[in-house]
Amino acid sequence: MIKLDEIKTLDKQDPLHSYRDQFSLPKNTIYLDGNSLGALPTRVKQRVKAVTEQQWGEDLISSWNTHDWVSLPQQVGNKIAPVIGANPGDVICCDSISVNLFKLLSAAVQFNTSRQRNKIISSSDNFPTDLYIAQGLQGLLGSEKCHFVDVEEEQLLSQIDDSVAIVLVTEVNFRSGKRLDIAALTRKAHQHGALIIVDLAHSAGVMPIHLNDWQVDMAVGCTYKYLNGGPGAPAFVYVNRALQGRLQQPIAGWFGHRSPFEFSPHYVADTGIKQFLAGTPSVISMAAVDAALELFADLDLQSVRTKSLQLGSLFDELIEQHGLQDKLQRLSPTEPEQRGSQLSYAFDYAYELCQALIDRGVIADFRAPNYIRFGFAPLYNSFEDIWHAVQAINDVIASEAYKEPRWSKRQAVT
Amino acid sequence: MIKLDEIKTLDKQDPLHSYRDQFSLPKNTIYLDGNSLGALPTRVKQRVKAVTEQQWGEDLISSWNTHDWVSLPQQVGNKIAPVIGANPGDVICCDSISVNLFKLLSAAVQFNTSRQRNKIISSSDNFPTDLYIAQGLQGLLGSEKCHFVDVEEEQLLSQIDDSVAIVLVTEVNFRSGKRLDIAALTRKAHQHGALIIVDLAHSAGVMPIHLNDWQVDMAVGCTYKYLNGGPGAPAFVYVNRALQGRLQQPIAGWFGHRSPFEFSPHYVADTGIKQFLAGTPSVISMAAVDAALELFADLDLQSVRTKSLQLGSLFDELIEQHGLQDKLQRLSPTEPEQRGSQLSYAFDYAYELCQALIDRGVIADFRAPNYIRFGFAPLYNSFEDIWHAVQAINDVIASEAYKEPRWSKRQAVT
Repeated sequence: MIKLDEIKTLDKQDPLHSYRDQFSLPKNTIYLDGNSLGALPTRVKQRVKAVTEQQWGEDLISSWNTHDWVSLPQQVGNKIAPVIGANPGDVICCDSISVNLFKLLSAAVQFNTSRQRNKIISSSDNFPTDLYIAQGLQGLLGSEKCHFVDVEEEQLLSQIDDSVAIVLVTEVNFRSGKRLDIAALTRKAHQHGALIIVDLAHSAGVMPIHLNDWQVDMAVGCTYKYLNGGPGAPAFVYVNRALQGRLQQPIAGWFGHRSPFEFSPHYVADTGIKQFLAGTPSVISMAAVDAALELFADLDLQSVRTKSLQLGSLFDELIEQHGLQDKLQRLSPTEPEQRGSQLSYAFDYAYELCQALIDRGVIADFRAPNYIRFGFAPLYNSFEDIWHAVQAINDVIASEAYKEPRWSKRQAVT
Repeated sequence: MIKLDEIKTLDKQDPLHSYRDQFSLPKNTIYLDGNSLGALPTRVKQRVKAVTEQQWGEDLISSWNTHDWVSLPQQVGNKIAPVIGANPGDVICCDSISVNLFKLLSAAVQFNTSRQRNKIISSSDNFPTDLYIAQGLQGLLGSEKCHFVDVEEEQLLSQIDDSVAIVLVTEVNFRSGKRLDIAALTRKAHQHGALIIVDLAHSAGVMPIHLNDWQVDMAVGCTYKYLNGGPGAPAFVYVNRALQGRLQQPIAGWFGHRSPFEFSPHYVADTGIKQFLAGTPSVISMAAVDAALELFADLDLQSVRTKSLQLGSLFDELIEQHGLQDKLQRLSPTEPEQRGSQLSYAFDYAYELCQALIDRGVIADFRAPNYIRFGFAPLYNSFEDIWHAVQAINDVIASEAYKEPRWSKRQAVT
């Protein structure tokens, strides 16, 4: 039987406790949706104001040089690099995950397909945009050149053979929170001559990632979840150093040119990670990401992972302590190490439960058709948050408050 | 002989005079670079603060619904529509010009090429990113499917024949400021069965544009120049209603799906303009654009064009009045109606002239190898600005201050 006192002690002993003070969190709210949209780091407010009012407003065009807007994509990329186990110079911040996946998949298809090897393989439960981008590329190039196949997540490893050109996976499943073994998938891919592209949307910033050590070929990721870069913030691209300069991505915008400011009519790709830029960077949004990443400068991601697993396990135990485990059907793996930083449950009234929790100041996430996700952000979620959240869930379920007819359907955004 | 008093009278009589008060302009600066980066509309400051601190900070994930972030791309598109002569529902705000051109060119190639008709034709003096994107697409699809050809700007109209699938043009040339006759190019393209894609980067917001009346097929444009949306702000896409639903763009991200929040593993494109979305919209940057566009709500673009031409003509006359016309070689057309809203001059020391002008508080734009651009933004530039700018140019050239050895080479950004 876990008691609130013990939980308060956990918070006092938490080595990450002071990070919470660096966020602007709404009062009387327990926010368990950082896996969808990370909270606002206080320092981002000042940076956004400065970049808008001083840099744009006062210094205008000269800011491209004086405030070095022109290299923001690299600067931000270099701050992301240690978070994902990459070297500086191998990561760049730009565009959205969708656009970046299109660049990487196109480059990989051109580099690694042949008549015998033309498959892109992914799991059918991958995040939809990843699947859609592969489908869109197949539509453009034709299925002889680029044949997209999706298989059950559990079959993915065994289905990698010599017909596969590209393995496209997301480290942590957005729905179940299940974490895949990227090192093992990479080894298998390479044994069969395939490239691997990893989507880190639900893992970057909340656990150690070792792209270099795992020898991952390419990756994309999101800055607006556990990296707290702001709604729809620019995404990132990683390309293994061994592949840089050997790939050609087709969205050949001027920022990917070797010398964009020569205004030559002929495209010559930059030989480094800069090739993966396309258009002019979105300065205000990217400056927000840059400021948010300062929180990660001296952060030990292993301690983040440890707390993330503790938060999840506590949640799980409290669900059981309230006897809710028969009502909420857990989709996430039983073994904590196999999870990302979320717990997902199927529940017939998941949408209504989510709304009733909002009424009680607990923010979780509904996903069609019938499940609810609770995300744990170790930088600002406390153990006490978990205690009160599960109390609220128990209150709603015990009272059947979720059956109130007043909820109107809403859209949900990852 | 034009005198300062007459110019002050012009400002007093200017029907757009009050717009200048709606911008936060730096003191003691004459900003003639709004064709590169528009100035900061004061209202954008409040909007950026609100979207960051209240919407993101306080309302967090619920803002996708309560603040309708989810339809920002359409809302902003609908505000751009009247500025470019389009109907609501035919324009959407997203990504960069480079990424958007890739979407449109790919869709157009799939729709309109055949063995006999496989050319994309553009002018070799088009803005480089437009050329690069066509080159990148040819690299991906092969030159049998997609054969990119660039010709001299003057030859463009005559080179459109039945082998051309797509005409790719920018209405106003970024270098010379020359304005092309889009209506005539569109007629010629259609006579030969070609589609036309128009880049409005240097025209949107500074002159009337009539995409619907001209029957243009597709267009892209920039919000950070004359629309004042902020550095690297999201661009826009226009697709003629007659083509919507008949095209398939390949960057098939989840926001272009008919029902993105069903999280289906199969991509089904939206049948309207929403298909041209890819990833999650960049909310902070797009909210800035949204606020900036409020200035255009009741604006008569013909009066903007009239003032733009007056500012340019005054600049031209004052250059002549100072006897500078032999030193600065004008690249822009002589006839004002054939110009956009800029004047460009070749000058051996263009870079140094630009720097010496900055020292005197006049901001213009250097472009490699040897020319200087002066952009006229009728919403915040006054006639008196022009007077003082040309005074400063005359001062620098007469004193040969541009020969001072202290200038260090800088990069220039459009």
